[in-house]
Amino acid sequence: MLYFSCDYAEGCHPKVLEELTKTNMVSTQGYGEDEFCDAAKAKIKEYINCPEADIYFLVGGTQTNQVVIASMLSDYDGVIAAETGHVAAHEAGAIEYSGHKVITIPQHEGKIAPDELKNYLQVFYADANHEHMVNPGMVYISYPTEYGTLYTKQELEAISAICNEYKIPLFIDGARLAYGLAAADDMTMADIAKLSDVFYIGGTKVGALFGEAVIFTKGNTPKHMITQIKLHGALLAKGRLLGVQFGALFTDDLYMKMGKNAVDMANIIKEDLLSKNYQLYMENPTNQIFVIMENSKLEAFGKEVAYGFWEKYDDNHTVIRIATSWATTKEDVNELRKVL
Amino acid sequence: MLYFSCDYAEGCHPKVLEELTKTNMVSTQGYGEDEFCDAAKAKIKEYINCPEADIYFLVGGTQTNQVVIASMLSDYDGVIAAETGHVAAHEAGAIEYSGHKVITIPQHEGKIAPDELKNYLQVFYADANHEHMVNPGMVYISYPTEYGTLYTKQELEAISAICNEYKIPLFIDGARLAYGLAAADDMTMADIAKLSDVFYIGGTKVGALFGEAVIFTKGNTPKHMITQIKLHGALLAKGRLLGVQFGALFTDDLYMKMGKNAVDMANIIKEDLLSKNYQLYMENPTNQIFVIMENSKLEAFGKEVAYGFWEKYDDNHTVIRIATSWATTKEDVNELRKVL
Amino acid sequence: MLYFSCDYAEGCHPKVLEELTKTNMVSTQGYGEDEFCDAAKAKIKEYINCPEADIYFLVGGTQTNQVVIASMLSDYDGVIAAETGHVAAHEAGAIEYSGHKVITIPQHEGKIAPDELKNYLQVFYADANHEHMVNPGMVYISYPTEYGTLYTKQELEAISAICNEYKIPLFIDGARLAYGLAAADDMTMADIAKLSDVFYIGGTKVGALFGEAVIFTKGNTPKHMITQIKLHGALLAKGRLLGVQFGALFTDDLYMKMGKNAVDMANIIKEDLLSKNYQLYMENPTNQIFVIMENSKLEAFGKEVAYGFWEKYDDNHTVIRIATSWATTKEDVNELRKVL
Amino acid sequence: MLYFSCDYAEGCHPKVLEELTKTNMVSTQGYGEDEFCDAAKAKIKEYINCPEADIYFLVGGTQTNQVVIASMLSDYDGVIAAETGHVAAHEAGAIEYSGHKVITIPQHEGKIAPDELKNYLQVFYADANHEHMVNPGMVYISYPTEYGTLYTKQELEAISAICNEYKIPLFIDGARLAYGLAAADDMTMADIAKLSDVFYIGGTKVGALFGEAVIFTKGNTPKHMITQIKLHGALLAKGRLLGVQFGALFTDDLYMKMGKNAVDMANIIKEDLLSKNYQLYMENPTNQIFVIMENSKLEAFGKEVAYGFWEKYDDNHTVIRIATSWATTKEDVNELRKVL
Repeated sequence: MLYFSCDYAEGCHPKVLEELTKTNMVSTQGYGEDEFCDAAKAKIKEYINCPEADIYFLVGGTQTNQVVIASMLSDYDGVIAAETGHVAAHEAGAIEYSGHKVITIPQHEGKIAPDELKNYLQVFYADANHEHMVNPGMVYISYPTEYGTLYTKQELEAISAICNEYKIPLFIDGARLAYGLAAADDMTMADIAKLSDVFYIGGTKVGALFGEAVIFTKGNTPKHMITQIKLHGALLAKGRLLGVQFGALFTDDLYMKMGKNAVDMANIIKEDLLSKNYQLYMENPTNQIFVIMENSKLEAFGKEVAYGFWEKYDDNHTVIRIATSWATTKEDVNELRKVL
Repeated sequence: MLYFSCDYAEGCHPKVLEELTKTNMVSTQGYGEDEFCDAAKAKIKEYINCPEADIYFLVGGTQTNQVVIASMLSDYDGVIAAETGHVAAHEAGAIEYSGHKVITIPQHEGKIAPDELKNYLQVFYADANHEHMVNPGMVYISYPTEYGTLYTKQELEAISAICNEYKIPLFIDGARLAYGLAAADDMTMADIAKLSDVFYIGGTKVGALFGEAVIFTKGNTPKHMITQIKLHGALLAKGRLLGVQFGALFTDDLYMKMGKNAVDMANIIKEDLLSKNYQLYMENPTNQIFVIMENSKLEAFGKEVAYGFWEKYDDNHTVIRIATSWATTKEDVNELRKVL
Repeated sequence: MLYFSCDYAEGCHPKVLEELTKTNMVSTQGYGEDEFCDAAKAKIKEYINCPEADIYFLVGGTQTNQVVIASMLSDYDGVIAAETGHVAAHEAGAIEYSGHKVITIPQHEGKIAPDELKNYLQVFYADANHEHMVNPGMVYISYPTEYGTLYTKQELEAISAICNEYKIPLFIDGARLAYGLAAADDMTMADIAKLSDVFYIGGTKVGALFGEAVIFTKGNTPKHMITQIKLHGALLAKGRLLGVQFGALFTDDLYMKMGKNAVDMANIIKEDLLSKNYQLYMENPTNQIFVIMENSKLEAFGKEVAYGFWEKYDDNHTVIRIATSWATTKEDVNELRKVL
Repeated sequence: MLYFSCDYAEGCHPKVLEELTKTNMVSTQGYGEDEFCDAAKAKIKEYINCPEADIYFLVGGTQTNQVVIASMLSDYDGVIAAETGHVAAHEAGAIEYSGHKVITIPQHEGKIAPDELKNYLQVFYADANHEHMVNPGMVYISYPTEYGTLYTKQELEAISAICNEYKIPLFIDGARLAYGLAAADDMTMADIAKLSDVFYIGGTKVGALFGEAVIFTKGNTPKHMITQIKLHGALLAKGRLLGVQFGALFTDDLYMKMGKNAVDMANIIKEDLLSKNYQLYMENPTNQIFVIMENSKLEAFGKEVAYGFWEKYDDNHTVIRIATSWATTKEDVNELRKVL
């Protein structure tokens, strides 16, 4: 069986496992107060060129979104997101469970449009009844988006400027950050740090067993952050596991190399698909490929390839997702070719 | 100053005040365990022809929506509503504050379309990842809607049937129920009771000082309802005040007479508006009139008439709301005519 | 039947009803933005000698406690209270429902001891693991307490000083404030304002139909307070009803006169009880009398007098509560005497 | 430096690491729907002799307590626990954050007394006002307790019987279950399964990198459990990591062997302490040793041994915790001996 269903089907990159193994019997303090976490934070700060960054390691993506959003918002605040944003659509209501509304605005290939964001805020404040409505207290975007698309630098600068104008933090969900940056020709992780107020570097989908690094970039860490993480049940006892893993990811540029591998493999597959006249549901430059497949072909295909169901396209077609990852090899891609 | 800004600008109907005055020094048990509440419940049950109804009196609309929705939903549930539904748009996130997502579907003149509701549910259950999404645990509609429009009986039956099919309770917000039923030619309060699983009869906007009567119509009262009301801070110590008021509202058909007055007055105003070539933003048969006014006229108009700002229409026009109520008199309407 | 079960068994003081009646058909803005609320706030500010006070009117006590505590605390905060504090024991978990722990410390006749409060805070901050515990973010006391007892001025000053030292707001629940101040010889409402960061003046139990006036005394109103009130379902549409009532309560010293009546009546009853060799469960100078009654007498007694069950004392005795109020008359007291 | 501060200072048992390494590049489904999870569940079910068990793997202890409690309780419910219970004292308010009160009853060496539990429930239901209080919806105990003590089988049977009588689920927190069972002479994991309604087998503190196995023992899994786990941010993407680890823990009796090692090592230390006239703060048969140390000795001791601060004993003494674990060796114990 070929696995192209998602980018978290395997364990971790061998280098990460090597570090976990090497450090396994070292005794440390719990809860992230250890030397491995300290070292990993230092590496990340340098990599993103942001010495004032304050970094917390968490376990998973939904958890990270819930913790970051709830800890930065007040009770009266909601978070603005694209209607297709992960927090709006696929987190089982984790944000609402923490008491906050996800205020949705339209998506365009998974992205919010700066002018529509600005318009939302203008209309909100112009409404004489706005104190009876949820206060827009944060903007959430994902880079890359849930459709694998990327904001241009200009778009991100525009969104960042609007957030500054309205004094609303901009939160960038980087669950697949490596796959976005590897595909972008105009964006670095330092740019992400500069343009956001808080973002996270996804490890779970990029070569770690698990782990997301949350970075408050502007001296804006919420108070009692450890207590806040704990009350969400998100404080890992053996926090050192996160430090060890992120230390490995940020050694010898491993994180970005893994990102590049996934994008390279995806590009080969896309070319192949187009040459074979498959229709893409939505184009994007990153590691997720959305293809429209005939239902009649899907059963056979599914016996050889694990793919992701995305949505029904019409009565005879389905949109499926083929995802590459840090773990995808040329051999995998060649095998897939034979089946396509 | 003429008041047409809303339907809660005055105190209560004189008959209601009379009853409050008459019973003022009677000593009773607290928290609604009194004879006035018992009597009012009996009257309502008879009026809606629903002997198995279980009735709770609450103070206000947002409170009622929060209590009903939170007490009927489980943690994993959200409530489906029109994107313009009061719970979605104008309750400051009270539903999300109680932990539940408001799942919005499109509105058509304030109403949800039965086929779109059905489609939402079908797509949801067809999605292999639906356990990662908020479970649709209730359908919320308002009768009349926030735009003063009314579901036809056929539409309501269709929605009710879909809810039955999916075993999801249908909750009808009747904050302005009297104004809806007075304008409808095909619907009675007994129909509302029959077609819903829970609904409320609004008092605040229809002649009470305050108060909403929540009615569980199918033997489906959530467990420990008193405790649930209390934990929302919604248990009125002098619950008898609600019993006394609803007793008055349901004596001599007062509730429906007040509804009729508001609709009659609104109809006169609408005729006048059309005869003077004003453009209505959206037509509806109930007590709220949405008119498109030239901004140049609004300032002068606003000095004589308290109206409701609704939304910007274009650079030169604004949508305003003129609301009649149980308290609107022919004299008020005649005065308004002179100004229009 | 004689009613001594609680202090909220009747409607409202005739003067309050008179004002409600007089203003009933006046049209006003909703949600407390009306001239009656403005006037009542001005009267209260003057009475408490606190020009910088910021005042919000809410409907009931549990609601007020939930709104005040939740709006002042951050997610990581809990509120310290006596184990018998209303928020800890008798509000159905309304504080926890809003996400915050009630941190209980021992009670002594319903009061917390300043040195035990200080000790709690010292031990907390000395604990190296305190970031894994709920942050003490507020101190809640009631005046009078749930047992009708009163803090001395010295005790209140000591608690206030500790709160200042630890930069924790002190919240005083004044659900029965009039009954406390009428019995105290060393405390005024201005003292309460000076020593607290936020407190409320109870109307529900002191002659209003309903209503509590929340007063932020130190320029410390939480942001977006209207939005916060609304998201708890606590924003009364006809807010003017609260303004009208509190306006009446603070005219001609009515509030304090009602307080004095209840205390005077309670004192007569207490004297009578002692002269008849009844044993008081706990002495207090305010309007609630806790008496130990033989179970064998209770049934007959209960047929003539509505009293409050407090708790089982032993197999043959029960602690009951006899409460006087603004509405208790000498005739009521004389009747009670005959039965005792 | 000798590490005796806690039982989660190292990574995982070599056998666990070996399995993680061996399976690292295997591709699987996400979210625990993989063959490793299936196999581990089968092993556990057999081990606890409970074929109807339904098992979910989570990451950490506080998370597990929050998810289990919130998913089993209704809004109106709280959970009864000892005042020293982990959920009451050291989880940063995670339970309250999910909306539920922790109802505390006295602790006796970390345990609740069956008769005091019964009395609490009797008094609660005898109180005429109990609908105004938090409903007792679950009993939480830890085995071993936070003080390392153990309920006897008789005590556990009594608590279980009370829970059955009142139809309240009994939840046993087994964060250190192996250390408890290894020290008990009258209890097996099958007994724990039989006597509880839900319990968890702690992995984090017993040789896993992380992981807790939640077991619903009576066909009583809450509805939509996956959605509930997800909305707490607790659904691990690479769920297989938990399956692989628990598979290893339940192979060749590894889990219980690790438990025995910790207890054996603790016994040697305890003997040594007593022979050297140290005073134990509280005796217990498991892996945590609470010793009263002179402050004057502590500084030097702390330079050689990482220990846990527990609490101040008096001005000259401190209670410290020395914890052994699966990873503690005889060499470690000998080194410690030299320092004591």
